[in-house]
Amino acid sequence: MENDTIAAISTPVGEGGIAVIRVSGPEAIPIVDSVYRGKQSLKEADSHTVHYGHIVHPETGERIDEVLVTVMRAPRTFTREDVVEVSCHGGMVPVQNTLEVLLSAGARLAEPGEFTKRAFLNGRIDLSQAEAVIDLIRAKTDRAARVAMHQAEGRLSKMIRRLRQKIIESLAHLAVNVDYPEYDAEEMTANKLLKECREVEAEIDRLLQTARQGKILREGIATVIVGRPNVGKSSLLNALTHENKAIVTDIPGTTRDVIEEYVNVRGVPLRLIDTAGIRETEDVVERIGVERSHRALEQADLVILVLNHNEPLTEDDHRLIELIREQTAIVMVNKTDLPRRIDLDEVKRLIGDKPLITTSLKEERGIDDLEQAIADLFFTGKMEAGETAIVSNARHIHLLERAKRSVREVIDGIESGMPLDMVEIDLKNAWQALGEIIGDAVAEDLIDQIFSQFCLGK
Amino acid sequence: MENDTIAAISTPVGEGGIAVIRVSGPEAIPIVDSVYRGKQSLKEADSHTVHYGHIVHPETGERIDEVLVTVMRAPRTFTREDVVEVSCHGGMVPVQNTLEVLLSAGARLAEPGEFTKRAFLNGRIDLSQAEAVIDLIRAKTDRAARVAMHQAEGRLSKMIRRLRQKIIESLAHLAVNVDYPEYDAEEMTANKLLKECREVEAEIDRLLQTARQGKILREGIATVIVGRPNVGKSSLLNALTHENKAIVTDIPGTTRDVIEEYVNVRGVPLRLIDTAGIRETEDVVERIGVERSHRALEQADLVILVLNHNEPLTEDDHRLIELIREQTAIVMVNKTDLPRRIDLDEVKRLIGDKPLITTSLKEERGIDDLEQAIADLFFTGKMEAGETAIVSNARHIHLLERAKRSVREVIDGIESGMPLDMVEIDLKNAWQALGEIIGDAVAEDLIDQIFSQFCLGK
Repeated sequence: MENDTIAAISTPVGEGGIAVIRVSGPEAIPIVDSVYRGKQSLKEADSHTVHYGHIVHPETGERIDEVLVTVMRAPRTFTREDVVEVSCHGGMVPVQNTLEVLLSAGARLAEPGEFTKRAFLNGRIDLSQAEAVIDLIRAKTDRAARVAMHQAEGRLSKMIRRLRQKIIESLAHLAVNVDYPEYDAEEMTANKLLKECREVEAEIDRLLQTARQGKILREGIATVIVGRPNVGKSSLLNALTHENKAIVTDIPGTTRDVIEEYVNVRGVPLRLIDTAGIRETEDVVERIGVERSHRALEQADLVILVLNHNEPLTEDDHRLIELIREQTAIVMVNKTDLPRRIDLDEVKRLIGDKPLITTSLKEERGIDDLEQAIADLFFTGKMEAGETAIVSNARHIHLLERAKRSVREVIDGIESGMPLDMVEIDLKNAWQALGEIIGDAVAEDLIDQIFSQFCLGK
Repeated sequence: MENDTIAAISTPVGEGGIAVIRVSGPEAIPIVDSVYRGKQSLKEADSHTVHYGHIVHPETGERIDEVLVTVMRAPRTFTREDVVEVSCHGGMVPVQNTLEVLLSAGARLAEPGEFTKRAFLNGRIDLSQAEAVIDLIRAKTDRAARVAMHQAEGRLSKMIRRLRQKIIESLAHLAVNVDYPEYDAEEMTANKLLKECREVEAEIDRLLQTARQGKILREGIATVIVGRPNVGKSSLLNALTHENKAIVTDIPGTTRDVIEEYVNVRGVPLRLIDTAGIRETEDVVERIGVERSHRALEQADLVILVLNHNEPLTEDDHRLIELIREQTAIVMVNKTDLPRRIDLDEVKRLIGDKPLITTSLKEERGIDDLEQAIADLFFTGKMEAGETAIVSNARHIHLLERAKRSVREVIDGIESGMPLDMVEIDLKNAWQALGEIIGDAVAEDLIDQIFSQFCLGK
């Protein structure tokens, strides 16, 4: 079925000026042409040309929408198949109706990620590049977008290919030695192999070192704001979101109180959790309980605990400080515009080496310090270099770790004097694991799973 | 400033496969070209061709996104100016960054509706066609989209132009008579004019008769579900929304409990009001009070009152029935799966000629009857004809009414024996009012106001 013609709405759902339906496959041009009325038949159109016309109901002839149709013939297309893009007025109903007549005319509704999957299966991009396309779409900050763009361009792929090339050369070397041990002294081969494997291991290590920051860039830092009622949690939320262009994401299919807001704090994407809870709580009644905090804390990469400068520590404060003991947290003492009644020395003693910030959100003081503390916690200077490949994808991290373990086995084996033909299998495993990153010899169900994370129409 | 080059993101905000930035104006091609790297300079590109390449940062040369760029040269474009569309990967960050480099390169951020405004100012479409573009985007049902499409195609415009032509001929006739009364017997002119004005009035009337249904199609029927707790309000909401693909609209800038959900009931777009309230109420506590119902009822075009089949009418039920006395309402007696304890005859007596439906939402019975009752209330068979122009826009209705009043003045004037040169001014007013519908001689601030309702990028 990989060779049928697929169609989907490729722009986000909502009201906009333009919506685009993408059609790809051998019948893309005749299918669109059968419901298109314009000056010229699309079948005669040159590749990479745009045509004005209308999409009509094939039976009634009624006009459904006024459109621009772009015809792109294989292989110079996103999928390497014939691709037609229909650019409609951005209303949901006409776009939906246009899609429906295209489906009636013989296209099949694409699965999420199916266009990109075809680009991969037809050899236009490798798997890590395809995955970078999702990351690019989901990027919440410039840095995340840049990392994804580098990956989409194939920087990570190039590095992985170089590593695999090294391994394959070692394997060839090994094969010669194993098959014809008389050609070389076993010890010389072992030494050479050891050196090569250590180089490979070091390179994998360098990539893995970028992974924590990569993961942060990709997924955002799950951040929870806790504190007693009226300490300024919702003011903090407002300060963070107003200054930093929040992107609010309704998680589809769930009730409306699971809302995530992303804010970009000096390049660090904070994914603020349970913000609806905070807004509600301070608006309506003081509903937050230790139990609720507990649940939110479980998912947190970062906790911001807000204390009141104007009140002595209460029992609840103590319990909250106790709760965050094991977590990456910043303690913020708010309301410095009011007289100090909190014992700061006691706070310092209780929180240990966690950063302590004092703020007056009311007077807009201290927010810079907070943002700096967040940036310091999550980024070292290394990120700025920009030119290195950065690993951000959990699947890639897992495979790099698998490759590293295999290379480690080779090194340990050689060092403990194991015969070289015994380590060959580990070296092959490393080669295989790295290959899965770029999609060489990946099982079909894994491919399906990877592409199903895409949005519809990509 | 109408002649500068504007740019905006034209697709809805969100994660998607494709996002499109539209650039229009005399410098559109050189501006995009200055941040584009591909095989060929866009300046040399033929009109209506598509080009693969990258958007780069003009200073650092860093790639921001992989794009397809469509070059369309004036005048065969949406705005009749040079238009370039940049189709990016659908992520918010790369799209935003691409827009930013375009703005740095000399484009100005377009105002909402500014592209369509240029299409109007440059004479490609008239005002009612431009307005139809908004309606097409906002359409929530097929019928609404069809009406908007007809208007975008110029059906209403054609009708208005025909009416104005009639009036101008009468005016010419009148001018001859007024200036040279000797050419014609005043009475013959008066009779002819009377006949013509009555024809114009009748045509305006026909258009106005379509207006109620047009307005419903365009704006949806503001629908409120009321009833005591636990009668099944939220089950009704779920039945309506699940069966009919709800479109949930968060109204921007307001708190989250003002949520509207559109459901399409047999072509009737219901705009369900205060649904968050209902969901909350039945989930959390029985918070609904008569006061809250009161407020919701004020905005309602349609009220659905839910009563409990399994309980005698309570005092609250009586108050709710009293509250909806003056409104378009359907009374639904739910829970017919449970024994009847309600006095249906009493209900019928109390609600008068309002439709009464019995349902068991639990057993999914009666929902069809409810949907039919809604369709019967709001659509007569006339809507199906399809070929007539339908007026849906409040501005158009207002202008048609103004034109009708002026024509009425002419008719009354002639009938009461007023000299013909006295009615000339009214006839001119009618001509003017109709002209404003299609944008002839419309004040500039009105134009600004009309186009500001558009979404960004259209």
